[in-house]
Amino acid sequence: MNGVKAAPVDLLHVRAASQRIHGWVHRTPVFTCQALDDMAGRELYFKAENLQKTGAFKARGACNAVFLEKERNPNCVGIVTDSSGNHAQGVAYASKCVDLDCTVVLPRGAPKVKCDAIRGYGAELVFCDPTPTARKKMSAKIANETGKTIISSSDNYDVMAGQGTIALELLEEVPDLDAVLVSTSAGGMLAGIAVAVRALRPQCRVYAVEPVGKGLQKCLEAKERLWPNPSRFLNTIADSIRLQAIGELTFPIICDYADSKVFTVTDDQMVEGMKLTFERMKLVVEAASGAAVYAAVHMMDEVQPPPRKVGVILCGGNTDLDNLPWLTRSTTYN
Amino acid sequence: MNGVKAAPVDLLHVRAASQRIHGWVHRTPVFTCQALDDMAGRELYFKAENLQKTGAFKARGACNAVFLEKERNPNCVGIVTDSSGNHAQGVAYASKCVDLDCTVVLPRGAPKVKCDAIRGYGAELVFCDPTPTARKKMSAKIANETGKTIISSSDNYDVMAGQGTIALELLEEVPDLDAVLVSTSAGGMLAGIAVAVRALRPQCRVYAVEPVGKGLQKCLEAKERLWPNPSRFLNTIADSIRLQAIGELTFPIICDYADSKVFTVTDDQMVEGMKLTFERMKLVVEAASGAAVYAAVHMMDEVQPPPRKVGVILCGGNTDLDNLPWLTRSTTYN
Repeated sequence: MNGVKAAPVDLLHVRAASQRIHGWVHRTPVFTCQALDDMAGRELYFKAENLQKTGAFKARGACNAVFLEKERNPNCVGIVTDSSGNHAQGVAYASKCVDLDCTVVLPRGAPKVKCDAIRGYGAELVFCDPTPTARKKMSAKIANETGKTIISSSDNYDVMAGQGTIALELLEEVPDLDAVLVSTSAGGMLAGIAVAVRALRPQCRVYAVEPVGKGLQKCLEAKERLWPNPSRFLNTIADSIRLQAIGELTFPIICDYADSKVFTVTDDQMVEGMKLTFERMKLVVEAASGAAVYAAVHMMDEVQPPPRKVGVILCGGNTDLDNLPWLTRSTTYN
Repeated sequence: MNGVKAAPVDLLHVRAASQRIHGWVHRTPVFTCQALDDMAGRELYFKAENLQKTGAFKARGACNAVFLEKERNPNCVGIVTDSSGNHAQGVAYASKCVDLDCTVVLPRGAPKVKCDAIRGYGAELVFCDPTPTARKKMSAKIANETGKTIISSSDNYDVMAGQGTIALELLEEVPDLDAVLVSTSAGGMLAGIAVAVRALRPQCRVYAVEPVGKGLQKCLEAKERLWPNPSRFLNTIADSIRLQAIGELTFPIICDYADSKVFTVTDDQMVEGMKLTFERMKLVVEAASGAAVYAAVHMMDEVQPPPRKVGVILCGGNTDLDNLPWLTRSTTYN
C-alpha cells in the first residue's frame, strides 16, 4: 500500500457502501463443501453471490453508485449503463429501488434470460454492436441526448466500493483467510475486494482469475496496460468476464492492492468448475464462477506456499438453463 | 392430537434427535425469493435440504437411526438398507460417521450419480429388481445372513424423529407459518414434520405433495390403506418419491397429524417447479422438490382460506445434470 497518495477507494468508502446498500441487497451466505475441500486439499469458503439480488454481485456496486447519484444529484433524470448483462440487471434493479428511469445498452446477442430480467426491473433496452467501443459510444450518446447519468460497470469508484462489501462480509465470517479468488473482467470487483482485504487482513492475498487471452499477469507485473487499444472481447463462454482489458480506473488500484499472480482458466476448466458447483454444492452458477471454483480446486499449488484457507467468490448464477455448457459443448466433463 | 394413546414419535423424540445429529448434519438455510413470492401471491419460505449433507434431508433420519442403533447395540456389525437412493446415501454417510459397515440394496436402474455417491461413502451396493417387494426381500436376506441391522427409509420411528428436526429449525426461523408443504413417498418426512409442527404450532397445516397415481388424499380421508398390496412404483420422473403406498408405521401418524388435503402434481408441473427453482433461486433441486415448489406457487388456492405464509421443503438436490428433465422431455417449460 502506498501511504503517500490518497487512495480513490478505501475501507471507509467500502464501509459507507455497506451501510448505504443494507436492506437492498442480501448478505449472502458463505458455504463450505467437504467434497470440494477434499478435492482441493485445503479449506474453501464460497461467497454465494449467485444468491444475491439480480443473481450476481453486481447489485452491490450498482446500488451504491445509483443511490449515491440520487443523493448527490436530486435532479437526476435517470441512469444509463452499458453491460454484458449482470451489471445491467444490477443498475436496473438499483434504479427501480429509488424510482429512477434506466436505459441499458447491451451488445446484440446478449443471453435472452438476462434481457428478460433487465426488462423485468422496468429498464429500457438499447442494443449495439458487440464491441467494447460500440457500447461505450452508444451509452455516451444516450446520456448526452437525455441528460441521464452513466454508471459504468467498473470505472466508477462508487461501484468498486460497493463490490468491496463482499470482502467485508467474507472476512467477518472467515477472518483468517489466506487468499481470495476473484473472477475478473474490467476489475471492479477485484479492485473493491483488494482494497478491503488489504485494509482488514494485509497478509491475505487477492488473486484474479481470468479467461485465456486476457494476459493480466504480465500487465500487473509490468504495472502497464499491455492490451491493444481499443481492446476486444475475449473468445470465452463466460459471457460475464469477456472484457480483455481492465478498466482505466480499476487498473492502478489492482496494481497496488491485488497480487500480480493471476490464474488463467480455459473454457473447459471453467465448465468443469461450474458443473462441480452444481453437482456437489447444489448451486446454480455461471461460467465465470466456475472459473474461480476450478482455480480453487486445482490450481492453488501454482503459488508458494499454497494458501490453506481460500475464499472463492461465486460471482453470479445467471446462466441459460436451456444451454448448459457441459451439455452443448463437445468435450465430456465429469 | 389424540391425548389418550402415547404417540410412538413425539416432540421429545424430535428434540432428542436434533441434539444427537447436531454437528453431523447441516442446519440448512431458509431462503426467500421475491420473484416466487410475487408469482405465488404469498410468502414462501424454502428450507434448503438440497444443501444438506448427502444432498437430501435423508441424512437427518439416517443419522438419528444409525447413531441410536450403535448406542443401543454396541455389538452391531453393520447396517443394511433399501432405498431409491437418497436414504441410501444418508445411511451410508451415517454409518461412516460411526464406523459401521453398510450395505445398500438398490433397484436396478438407479441413477448413476446416486450409486457413485453411495460408494463414495464406503458402502457396498447390491442391486435387485425394481419393485418395492424385491428390495424388501433382498435387504431381509442380507440382514439375516450377516446380522446387520435394517434401517428402513421410513417405517422406523427413529428415522421419522430425525426428519422432524426439519420442522424444528424451520419454525425457529419462521414461527408464524400457516402451512408446510412436504413431498411424500413412504411418508417418513411427512410424519416427522407433522408431529413436530402439531406440537409447536397446532394452527399450522402440514400438507403432503404427491405425484399423480398415489391417491393419498382418499386414504387420509378414509383413514384407510386403499392402495393395492403389494403396492407399486409410480410412473413419475421424481425418482425419490416413487413409492405408491405410505409406510405401515407412518400412515397412522400421518392420519393423526397431517392435513387430509393432498396436493397432486403432474410430472410436467414438477419439472416447471424444478426449473423455476434453478432459475430464480439458483438452487439445484431434484424433481420431488420441484413438486413442492409448484404446489406452493400455483395450487394454494385449493384450500380455504389459502395460507399466507408457507414453508416449502426443498427435500433434495440429487439430480442427473446430464439429463435435466426440461431438456430431455418433449414439453416446453418456462
